[in-house]
Amino acid sequence: MSILVVGSVAFDSVETPFGKADDVLGGSATYFSTSASYFTDVSLVAVVGEDFPDEHVAVLEERGVDLEGLTRVPGETFRWKGRYDFDLNQAHTLETHLNVFSDFNPVLPESYRDAEFLFLANIDPELQLKVLEQVKNPKFIACDTMNFWIESKPEVLGELFKKVDLVVINEGEAREFAGEASLVKAAAKIMDGGPRILIVKRGEYGALMFNGPSIFSAPAYPLEDIFDPTGAGDTFAGGLMGYIANTGDITEEGLRQAIIFGSTMASFNVEAFSLDRLKSLTRQEINARFGEFKRLTHFESL
Amino acid sequence: MSILVVGSVAFDSVETPFGKADDVLGGSATYFSTSASYFTDVSLVAVVGEDFPDEHVAVLEERGVDLEGLTRVPGETFRWKGRYDFDLNQAHTLETHLNVFSDFNPVLPESYRDAEFLFLANIDPELQLKVLEQVKNPKFIACDTMNFWIESKPEVLGELFKKVDLVVINEGEAREFAGEASLVKAAAKIMDGGPRILIVKRGEYGALMFNGPSIFSAPAYPLEDIFDPTGAGDTFAGGLMGYIANTGDITEEGLRQAIIFGSTMASFNVEAFSLDRLKSLTRQEINARFGEFKRLTHFESL
Repeated sequence: MSILVVGSVAFDSVETPFGKADDVLGGSATYFSTSASYFTDVSLVAVVGEDFPDEHVAVLEERGVDLEGLTRVPGETFRWKGRYDFDLNQAHTLETHLNVFSDFNPVLPESYRDAEFLFLANIDPELQLKVLEQVKNPKFIACDTMNFWIESKPEVLGELFKKVDLVVINEGEAREFAGEASLVKAAAKIMDGGPRILIVKRGEYGALMFNGPSIFSAPAYPLEDIFDPTGAGDTFAGGLMGYIANTGDITEEGLRQAIIFGSTMASFNVEAFSLDRLKSLTRQEINARFGEFKRLTHFESL
Repeated sequence: MSILVVGSVAFDSVETPFGKADDVLGGSATYFSTSASYFTDVSLVAVVGEDFPDEHVAVLEERGVDLEGLTRVPGETFRWKGRYDFDLNQAHTLETHLNVFSDFNPVLPESYRDAEFLFLANIDPELQLKVLEQVKNPKFIACDTMNFWIESKPEVLGELFKKVDLVVINEGEAREFAGEASLVKAAAKIMDGGPRILIVKRGEYGALMFNGPSIFSAPAYPLEDIFDPTGAGDTFAGGLMGYIANTGDITEEGLRQAIIFGSTMASFNVEAFSLDRLKSLTRQEINARFGEFKRLTHFESL
């Protein structure tokens, strides 16, 4: 099965303790689709401006991403500038220029409307709802969001959460949306009348999945250096949803493996700026690191 | 095999978002030995003042802890007063009265000097070294410390680390001691010429064990409410070292199970103030929660 992602394609300028990169390829849909492309066919809906170079488009083309939904319009592409200090879990946004992204009104090409697996990356929840209306018969829908929408449009977000199967969200955002300091209580509150499954991203501490009464704790891969955390969350979601779309397996066991694939992809992505590491992986490398996650967490039963 | 612990026995006054407790039983050696007592025989070395009530001594006696090394001297018992806000990973110390603990000079009773397993809880590293000199032929030694000693006596601590098999330390302390933002690099630095094994405690995110080239990531148990985190680290160490002393198994597999038992004990401890939950467990409850840790982390290999 293929997967459809709606989100941003952007220029990022990033400073970390390890160096800096200017106007490199970024955006949630970019990271997501490159990551997912190692597992399944990917279709992308996003908008860029006239300044978006062919070499960036080529990165996605080389990964076989269907770009029928990538619209090019007059104006400049979305630009984000950020800095990370030694606490790499925390991005400090220096500049955000929405540019053509501020008028983004995602319209799915006819051929996309039969999509069975769908990822709504972090955009205005009203647009996420609009995308949902255009998909005829989805099997499994996941969405991300961010603190900006939690603070400005919590009701719309609540409406969206009722219509998706899976919410993927940061730990602090989960607490903020639910107004609960306890993560377990926050999860219960978000899932009450909302998504059946909640995955909480915890940066260098891994991820927690709440699936009905079951909880799964996934570690992060302990790296010597996290070179650039930009895109880690979308890369995680790409591996996760790409694997789910490929197998069609949404059992507890299938979802657990999907999370480890997501964590695997994110661990590669943070090893370099932009998509430098992510775009040139092999399935062998990915499977080998999946195996390392197994060794990292395994202990014998009593 | 039995285990010997040297540390503090104290009165704690604690405020958390869930309530408060005044002058309750606390101290690193108290939490450690109560926790370890579910796995093996425990001998304790600590000092209390004339104000220390028999009912507190009885808690340790009921757990079968050998108290020959518990000295009672003129003066008042060590008192700690602290507060936790909603971030329960961070204790705010309000008052510390060392009292009789300030002259603590641990002298092991003759019957303790053959101890094979030894835990040096957080005290002045010079005293930790003095204890080491009194033990004739130890098989496996572990120690804890805190930021105060890292800042005031880093050289003595470095000397101690060379003489122990295992250092158990908080994440922030590991980074501080090594002067490294990357935890993986910090671990390598601490272990270079130091302990063969390093266990990094990460509060509600679990623990990481570095054992030569191998890394093990253990989750924390996701609780609805962490009622009082006081003593969690020493309770963790008690389960860990108690299990190791009982089995004598210091292989990678044995250590991994020991960490899960440590995490299990810590997860019970934080469910109530003082030792209220810890002192009345059954081995059945402990083994059942160990099993829950297995379900929490398990995923199928490829």
